[in-house]
Amino acid sequence: MSVTSRDVGAPPQPEGEGALRGTANSARLAARVLATLPREEKDRGLGAWADAIEGGDAEILASNALDLETASAEGASRAVLDRLRLDGMRIREMAEQIRHVASLEDPVGSVIDARMLDNGLRLEKVTVPIGVIGVIYEGRPNVTVDAASLAVKSGNAVLLRGSRTAERSNACLVRILREGWRDAHLPFEAVQAVPPTRQASEAMMRARGMIDLLIPRGGADLIQTVVRESQVPVIETGVGNCHVYVDAHADLEKALRILINAKVQRPGVCNAAETLLVHRDVADAFVPQALSALADHGVEVFGDPEIRRRSPAGMDVQPATDADFLTEFLDLKIAAKVVDTLEEALEHIETFGSRHTDAIVSEDLQAVRRFVAAVDSAAVMVNASTRFTDGGEFGMGAEIGISTQKLHARGPMALPELTTYKWVVWGSGQVRA
Amino acid sequence: MSVTSRDVGAPPQPEGEGALRGTANSARLAARVLATLPREEKDRGLGAWADAIEGGDAEILASNALDLETASAEGASRAVLDRLRLDGMRIREMAEQIRHVASLEDPVGSVIDARMLDNGLRLEKVTVPIGVIGVIYEGRPNVTVDAASLAVKSGNAVLLRGSRTAERSNACLVRILREGWRDAHLPFEAVQAVPPTRQASEAMMRARGMIDLLIPRGGADLIQTVVRESQVPVIETGVGNCHVYVDAHADLEKALRILINAKVQRPGVCNAAETLLVHRDVADAFVPQALSALADHGVEVFGDPEIRRRSPAGMDVQPATDADFLTEFLDLKIAAKVVDTLEEALEHIETFGSRHTDAIVSEDLQAVRRFVAAVDSAAVMVNASTRFTDGGEFGMGAEIGISTQKLHARGPMALPELTTYKWVVWGSGQVRA
Repeated sequence: MSVTSRDVGAPPQPEGEGALRGTANSARLAARVLATLPREEKDRGLGAWADAIEGGDAEILASNALDLETASAEGASRAVLDRLRLDGMRIREMAEQIRHVASLEDPVGSVIDARMLDNGLRLEKVTVPIGVIGVIYEGRPNVTVDAASLAVKSGNAVLLRGSRTAERSNACLVRILREGWRDAHLPFEAVQAVPPTRQASEAMMRARGMIDLLIPRGGADLIQTVVRESQVPVIETGVGNCHVYVDAHADLEKALRILINAKVQRPGVCNAAETLLVHRDVADAFVPQALSALADHGVEVFGDPEIRRRSPAGMDVQPATDADFLTEFLDLKIAAKVVDTLEEALEHIETFGSRHTDAIVSEDLQAVRRFVAAVDSAAVMVNASTRFTDGGEFGMGAEIGISTQKLHARGPMALPELTTYKWVVWGSGQVRA
Repeated sequence: MSVTSRDVGAPPQPEGEGALRGTANSARLAARVLATLPREEKDRGLGAWADAIEGGDAEILASNALDLETASAEGASRAVLDRLRLDGMRIREMAEQIRHVASLEDPVGSVIDARMLDNGLRLEKVTVPIGVIGVIYEGRPNVTVDAASLAVKSGNAVLLRGSRTAERSNACLVRILREGWRDAHLPFEAVQAVPPTRQASEAMMRARGMIDLLIPRGGADLIQTVVRESQVPVIETGVGNCHVYVDAHADLEKALRILINAKVQRPGVCNAAETLLVHRDVADAFVPQALSALADHGVEVFGDPEIRRRSPAGMDVQPATDADFLTEFLDLKIAAKVVDTLEEALEHIETFGSRHTDAIVSEDLQAVRRFVAAVDSAAVMVNASTRFTDGGEFGMGAEIGISTQKLHARGPMALPELTTYKWVVWGSGQVRA
């Protein structure tokens, strides 16, 4: 099957539904080729990408410089500029990440269930690619390369709709990937850039039947918009209002270590802790030292009256509102509350949590078992930091996002989560009685 | 945790968003109890249901008689009345089906993956219920009982929105189920009736965060409406435009048996065949006998010119349009076409199929391997009837629907498909470096 002859280096198409249909159709044809490509070919393609990215460093840096210039002129913050900026080191890291993805096991073609029926039919449940995956993302240009690598390694085509800020960097990266595959005689239409416009995103969300799955990656607003408006199936990612619950029978030394790590080790990410819950029985012992340690790390605390009552002399703890308990701060801020019982902690997490990651610190088996059974989150940590909810930490070798929904995949998603399955039924003329 | 004290026998609530919120919240509270209920308790509850259904036969038949009377007065077809009608036998079958579901393995609490990380963390991926499942369905009242049994056995609560035609039968069944669990001291709010109105369906589709999953069961119109409008994640079920492809190297005796079984054994269901594709090399040998056999079974054929050219003398084969190839007839009708190559058959299935079930009849290993790899459907049959795509036939013991989408579940869905998973991470104070 041949892929279309559209120019490999063509810039993203003009906006809207018609253009998106053309892009998605080219991607679908490429996906059909990729779906049955042997691992060796896919890995050869990923190798070609890594080389092309390294060889294209001058162009990439030039495009990136233009993005940086525009962003700077528009008054972007230092944090935004830092996320946007590429340098030789970051480009080499991108290439290394592609080679790493190539080294991972091929998730396609695994027989995940098989049975022989009484009538002689043999059933096999076999993993297959999902097809065409759309990714709508903000931020770093390396997501372009990560998402493309994970998609094609799992046999999928990908439509990439990055942020306007990184428009030229992303376009350059996509062009290099497509040229790399054209030269390697692989279906380069598997990677498509979609222009960073609202109109293009809307066309993606309406492309049911053309796009099989949409993954939004970014802030809560972006994710909520896609979840609300998309007619294409979505995997909701990323919003993490994570709790650390310090139980009546906690080892307070562990509790303090876990709390501080969960809050401050990298506050801007979805698996950082946003709320501390402390059982009343250990509140007098734990709250003052926790507040001091948090303050030492520059963390601002919003506490309920029982927390504030226990703050060390001279320390200013803001009163916490319900809004604080609902907020994913992504910053050196934390909400804190004293609970009378484990059940009250569970109730609080059920009401205010985002079903991402919640941790209990306790040496009491019954309390731990109850917490693990009752907390309805993608990941439940027992005496460990919430920061471990991560594809890399979980040993998956990569991560395309962290699902906070219940269908298909929950928690960190890597290559197997980018596949589905089909049933293959081997017969010898059987019919149904 | 106590469930609400709303009267167990209360009729479905008045329509709209507010009422649905109340219903869904009661269901969610009950789901939290059910999620951690041991198997023995769930099975005891199912036993109580079977007894209650059998003991309530007089009321059920009385409600059903009222539905039949209304439907009859409104001029319902004999087929509709037959699907609606309950009798002593059908009631006993419902009770038996409940007992059968009780006998199936509990899908909750299985550790489906576990690993020990280098830092000493132990990861477990454990199956858990989805939460609150909404089912919007047409037709037979026994779906009410089937859906409720499968939902609670897998630890979920269920909102049942049946058809207007079966309104009184369904309300009576739900009341009996709820009374049965009230008397057994189980969380009866796990089963909720939603009124059979457009307004109530719309409220369900907007209930993101309150309902975790919507399953539409019924005709293509119903399914498309739910898929298009729902903000709640949906599993698309049931539309089956299934193909039988007779390859150049088919055993024609098997091909004929499979074709007739796939088309006529039960034409009104989603896994019945709707299109026949025949390779040119066997068209002269196969088409005339296939057309005769289809005619003998009262099947009307819509054929392309190459099919019509080969029709036995005196037989009238209608010309096939693209619309015919797109149609799920659910009737004694079939579209038919001669293809020049296996690739043309694959292209036709890709263009006109519904990704439900497609069959190849061939003794040629390479052709079979290509078909199995390239056809992107929930089930691919090799030398077997399309009618085998069914939870019962697949040995799943039950079926809540057949998914034609790629996320979460594909093909027949039973108890494991009504669960999701969570990650449980067991530590001893680990923090991230």
